[in-house]
Amino acid sequence: MKFIDLQDVEYIALGAALLGTGGGGDPHLGKLMAIQAIKQNGPVQLFDPDEVPDDAVIVPTAMMGAPTVLIEKLANGEEVLRAFNGIKKYAGKDIYATLPIEAGGVNSMIPISVAARTGIPLLDCDGMGRAFPELQMTSFHLWDVSATPMIIADEKGNTVIMESINNFWTETLARNICVTMGGSVMLSIYQMPGKVLKEACIRNTLSLSAKIGESILTARKKGKNPIKNLLEVTGGFELFKGKVIDVLRRTEGGFVRGEAQIEGIEDYRGKNLKVQFQNENLIAIRDEKIIASVPDLICIVNLDSAIPVTTEAIRYGHRVLVLSIPCDPKWRTPRGIETVGPRYFGYDVDYIPVEKLISEGGNHQ
Amino acid sequence: MKFIDLQDVEYIALGAALLGTGGGGDPHLGKLMAIQAIKQNGPVQLFDPDEVPDDAVIVPTAMMGAPTVLIEKLANGEEVLRAFNGIKKYAGKDIYATLPIEAGGVNSMIPISVAARTGIPLLDCDGMGRAFPELQMTSFHLWDVSATPMIIADEKGNTVIMESINNFWTETLARNICVTMGGSVMLSIYQMPGKVLKEACIRNTLSLSAKIGESILTARKKGKNPIKNLLEVTGGFELFKGKVIDVLRRTEGGFVRGEAQIEGIEDYRGKNLKVQFQNENLIAIRDEKIIASVPDLICIVNLDSAIPVTTEAIRYGHRVLVLSIPCDPKWRTPRGIETVGPRYFGYDVDYIPVEKLISEGGNHQ
Repeated sequence: MKFIDLQDVEYIALGAALLGTGGGGDPHLGKLMAIQAIKQNGPVQLFDPDEVPDDAVIVPTAMMGAPTVLIEKLANGEEVLRAFNGIKKYAGKDIYATLPIEAGGVNSMIPISVAARTGIPLLDCDGMGRAFPELQMTSFHLWDVSATPMIIADEKGNTVIMESINNFWTETLARNICVTMGGSVMLSIYQMPGKVLKEACIRNTLSLSAKIGESILTARKKGKNPIKNLLEVTGGFELFKGKVIDVLRRTEGGFVRGEAQIEGIEDYRGKNLKVQFQNENLIAIRDEKIIASVPDLICIVNLDSAIPVTTEAIRYGHRVLVLSIPCDPKWRTPRGIETVGPRYFGYDVDYIPVEKLISEGGNHQ
Repeated sequence: MKFIDLQDVEYIALGAALLGTGGGGDPHLGKLMAIQAIKQNGPVQLFDPDEVPDDAVIVPTAMMGAPTVLIEKLANGEEVLRAFNGIKKYAGKDIYATLPIEAGGVNSMIPISVAARTGIPLLDCDGMGRAFPELQMTSFHLWDVSATPMIIADEKGNTVIMESINNFWTETLARNICVTMGGSVMLSIYQMPGKVLKEACIRNTLSLSAKIGESILTARKKGKNPIKNLLEVTGGFELFKGKVIDVLRRTEGGFVRGEAQIEGIEDYRGKNLKVQFQNENLIAIRDEKIIASVPDLICIVNLDSAIPVTTEAIRYGHRVLVLSIPCDPKWRTPRGIETVGPRYFGYDVDYIPVEKLISEGGNHQ
């Protein structure tokens, strides 16, 4: 895939929503933005990170906010251009390419829209290989890339340029600004030279998303079982099948936090599974044992269609499959675990890779 | 006064604290910053606004935050230079001079410190002729000067540049950023050309402050009654003499809000006065009748020394005089009243000038 066309957008939005592990935005909203931009400006060039010159500057573009807000408060498309053009002006440098900061139904699409509207290439990589709720939770952060100077732009026309002393302060300040601006905003963040990107990024996020999306959408046509197909394509593990019997969800401090309770069906009859989330799914607990946790991906999909279910959309009665996909090896390093492991999110347990948890039948909390 | 020396600083800090009507910061803390800067760099040149070329750019510098926080969380002096130098760089223009955004024990002193450290002149004017709690409450705002681009800098090293769509959004965003940064921050704000300044500013704030401060500090030496002297110098009216019997005060949303209850003594025995404040004193109610309100100045001073008492320092047992000074005519226009009149602060009454209220014995709420 050297160009992203309208069909690719469909696939990527869906596949990235799966990698978004419940967060990263609704794929339907995301793809509307990208489709409009491509219809107006033509297909987007997709470059491999290795095609970026070492001294060229790249900047990821993204939407920030609680998923529950994103689905109510839509972007008008101008604010992300303001964020992108602003960083170009502020840094006094040409921007060679853009890329997603994370995988997700909206956050895979924003940079496609920016690339289409500005004529620059999109890079086949991101900073998470999934979605995480906070701005410092990127592989760029593990490589000591500063998130700032960053630009935050809202749909009303307000713009903030931030220079912070570290990426935790960036998160704290930007989260509050985001809430004050109405709960969802557009960002340009983590500008860096090509040389750093090549080491620090997580590769193939968009091509993997396209492959996943295609597998979901075309399995039936090819006479395949969509779930089996999905597990093959992602290298994921089945954790549970069941019916959602309760969802607790509240939007606070710029995040949606909560828990979904799932009652087992088929092979899982008599068992239960809890998935707790902060924008993204953080931990899966089966019959009181942790069966998967961050940074491994915990994905919830419709049991029949394999379409991903996001944390703002999951509700009583959904029949779902819960699967887990091993995270990128960058997250399994000591610094990776410190940044996005279960302890960072308040769980008093060590991280155990999902493949080990499954073979051992889970870990007592 | 063509130069501000250490003696002038003492006078200005005290006089500006009176004009600060309870807010604008503690004069003792304020003068420490200015004294240190003048000791290191020499006296500061004081210019009249008319000495600024029409096309020269000026920028007020200030501290923002709840007075209860300002007295606990001191500035290190570098953050305001970061705010000042940042705006110079961002605007790509030389800054000709600085000035206070408001009168106040700290906010009269910040620009003195900036002027001393950068070698630029200070201007004998401000944007309020008193202090007000919110950023859009300036005479500059009445002249449609944009508060942005503005810079917010904290003592940790974080910097935010803001471009907002109007001065109310500036206030909303900056207030939240201020709270997130710890409750007090330094600003450069309302940059404008000399031509606009000359029309929009409130003049003689610093020379009037110096005159007031001198009258307070030297009355006794000259064998004068400090209170009588103060009323003469300010053109103010005595509203009440009494003993503070209760103070309600809470710090919330970046403001200190509350009420002081004062029981009458001397001529006011058997009467009572309530002063309600949001950083600054907003309204004075004597025996259930409004006797003075914003935008007129309501000042509380020690009954013996005439030293101003700020809203974060006032407490049970203080024997005080409450006086009111008519505000600058700019505030008595329809737009002025709309911006800072009693209705803006939630009081369901029309503004009546203090001299009229006094002659009529007050206005029923």
